[in-house]
Amino acid sequence: MKLTKDGVTAAKGFWAASTAAGIKYTGRDDMALIVSSVPCKAAGVFTKNVVKAAPVVYDQNVVAKGQATAIVVNSGIANACTGVNGLMACEATAEKAGAALGIDPGQVLVASTGVIGMPLNMDKVKAGIDQLVKDLADEKENNGAESLEGGHKAAKAIMTTDTHPKEVAVEFEVGGKKAVLGGMCKGSGMIHPNLGTMLCFLTTDVSIDQKLLQEALLDNVQETFNMVSVDRDTSTNDSVLLLANGQAGNPTITEKNEDYKTFSEALHQAALTLCKMIAGDGEGATALLQMDVVGAKTHQQAKVIAKSVITSNLVKTAIAGHDANWGRIICAMGYSGEDFDPALVDLFFESKAGKIQILKNGTALAYSEEEATRILSETEITCKADLHLGSEKATAWGCDLTKQYVSINADYRS
Amino acid sequence: MKLTKDGVTAAKGFWAASTAAGIKYTGRDDMALIVSSVPCKAAGVFTKNVVKAAPVVYDQNVVAKGQATAIVVNSGIANACTGVNGLMACEATAEKAGAALGIDPGQVLVASTGVIGMPLNMDKVKAGIDQLVKDLADEKENNGAESLEGGHKAAKAIMTTDTHPKEVAVEFEVGGKKAVLGGMCKGSGMIHPNLGTMLCFLTTDVSIDQKLLQEALLDNVQETFNMVSVDRDTSTNDSVLLLANGQAGNPTITEKNEDYKTFSEALHQAALTLCKMIAGDGEGATALLQMDVVGAKTHQQAKVIAKSVITSNLVKTAIAGHDANWGRIICAMGYSGEDFDPALVDLFFESKAGKIQILKNGTALAYSEEEATRILSETEITCKADLHLGSEKATAWGCDLTKQYVSINADYRS
Repeated sequence: MKLTKDGVTAAKGFWAASTAAGIKYTGRDDMALIVSSVPCKAAGVFTKNVVKAAPVVYDQNVVAKGQATAIVVNSGIANACTGVNGLMACEATAEKAGAALGIDPGQVLVASTGVIGMPLNMDKVKAGIDQLVKDLADEKENNGAESLEGGHKAAKAIMTTDTHPKEVAVEFEVGGKKAVLGGMCKGSGMIHPNLGTMLCFLTTDVSIDQKLLQEALLDNVQETFNMVSVDRDTSTNDSVLLLANGQAGNPTITEKNEDYKTFSEALHQAALTLCKMIAGDGEGATALLQMDVVGAKTHQQAKVIAKSVITSNLVKTAIAGHDANWGRIICAMGYSGEDFDPALVDLFFESKAGKIQILKNGTALAYSEEEATRILSETEITCKADLHLGSEKATAWGCDLTKQYVSINADYRS
Repeated sequence: MKLTKDGVTAAKGFWAASTAAGIKYTGRDDMALIVSSVPCKAAGVFTKNVVKAAPVVYDQNVVAKGQATAIVVNSGIANACTGVNGLMACEATAEKAGAALGIDPGQVLVASTGVIGMPLNMDKVKAGIDQLVKDLADEKENNGAESLEGGHKAAKAIMTTDTHPKEVAVEFEVGGKKAVLGGMCKGSGMIHPNLGTMLCFLTTDVSIDQKLLQEALLDNVQETFNMVSVDRDTSTNDSVLLLANGQAGNPTITEKNEDYKTFSEALHQAALTLCKMIAGDGEGATALLQMDVVGAKTHQQAKVIAKSVITSNLVKTAIAGHDANWGRIICAMGYSGEDFDPALVDLFFESKAGKIQILKNGTALAYSEEEATRILSETEITCKADLHLGSEKATAWGCDLTKQYVSINADYRS
């Protein structure tokens, strides 16, 4: 199993393109198209927010049928809180893309991200689709089947307040065949996914039963995307879509055998990598904060406590200040809703700059504040709490809270 | 019923003093003493955080016995995560205060607020108590029974990052007698009370059965302190203490009669006023945000949705930017965990500067952004959401999230 920086077009038979459709941004690409050369098994998980954006409602219906061939994405406008018109915009997008690609419109998934409440300008969307399909044909002709350029461009086109594109690919072997799972995502603010993240698109050439594909994805997000938070705000648009086109030529995975395990592990590696990218690129963030809870009685207990710490504004500002403020960490553990014995807790900080133990049996050690600050001044920081209650563990990913986050969200409407 | 700005010594027979004991701060008072001339019925509610500060654990035992005469408070150090030594410090404080005041140490409540994890210097605490008892005697001698000065000074001594003291009193009549309930509180950061707030001390001269006193307080905090949030961080020290010394001379309240209702209403008015002070003085805050949810199916539904909105970082930064970003409000309502129909929601903003409707039946009206910004530029803002599902309602109080909050919590250890 090998992790690479290839993206959503790394798997056999997937193509992507991007274009500047002028949906809201100017001077940058803001639409992307992902297409498979053959119909795919489709899986998806979506936001649990009661207020669901139109593309989420639309895609839930498509994924329920289990098949898709293309995904049309726009950034700038979220198409959320747009009522019946919003749903009609999704339908019109799928019809236009189906016609331009020569496929059934029912095979087209749609996704949007950006400002809530504004309507999509469908003339711009339709013109954008024409351009995307044309660019895709040019890309195939000029750069051939191995080109990853379209995927990289698409990853940029779906960004909003992200400071860099987020791509990953995993190469692995199933049933004696080389297979690939690649993906891209975006997300920087309004990030506290609950079964899904802002927008994530995964593609694989593995041949797999649709029900197993959906199950693998569902299992995966519980430990990856659902353990990420930038600001505790669960978006209206969170979606993770996974397309599998079977082009790897492996014997179709139809049961939870070794191949299924391998595929699940590849999915986990890819999702994990993207999650860390999202947390580390949280709006205004200067550091990725990984919280490991070990020695828990149950996995659930470890998850709840880990997530409570990475969502605490006081912990997040302490990290911004490179301050080993363990009082705020143990306080956030304490109000998580899970019971534990504070007098048993050991607490550690770790980064490239070293590792330091802060608490032993719930009591502060005579640690060096200087050394702690040096460790906490890195861009990737891990905090580990050992509850000494059992052998279960969990990890959550967040980021620091800086003045820049306030600027991004107070100084203009995002 | 009349609301005044008198404080914790407004009720008959209550005295207070403050002193600069040098616990952590320099050049300001940091210890306070509240004493009743006769033993009081005592009630209290405390943090639900698993990690409870030593004074919380200590006071829970005192309150369980139902009686108290004095409260000793310090700011600067929270005496939290201090293990057995922390509890011994509480005991030593009560013993010293009992001896100095000539009362049973079991009648002394203690409270602390400040940095987690640091030990109290008991020499300083004991010297502080001697000074407090001396000052209290001077105050009685020099300023007489009607003096409120000691209460005002005590309200300043318990402040940490608060920008101003928080005091209130309510005058009312029970059983044909004039009665008073007064109080003070502190709290600015780590404010997301769960059965209690940072520190709140209420005193009344009403004569009331202890069980009813505790019940009235418990009922009250559900709708007041538990509906306030500055940063979603539930502290280790949250305590609301209520002492009733019976000096009003009313027939003792022993059942839920009209007098009980009057007393409960006075308690509600006092708590409400203090809650708004806490939210409006949240760390770095420039505006108090009141969220009214009406037309709910159940009271619980209204509470959960209201609290979800005032705790959203994205809503809070929008308020900081005077931006009528209703998308973030309806998004926060949507992820609250309560079900509702977004297509039925009406949304309004209101302040001294006027009132404006933003959403009707879940759809944005053609409102003036300029007018909305004018309304949102005041220091007290109300947002109202009508769910059109029933007749239940609830209110929560929060504040905006500013760069100043980040400064306060990132630039030095609070």
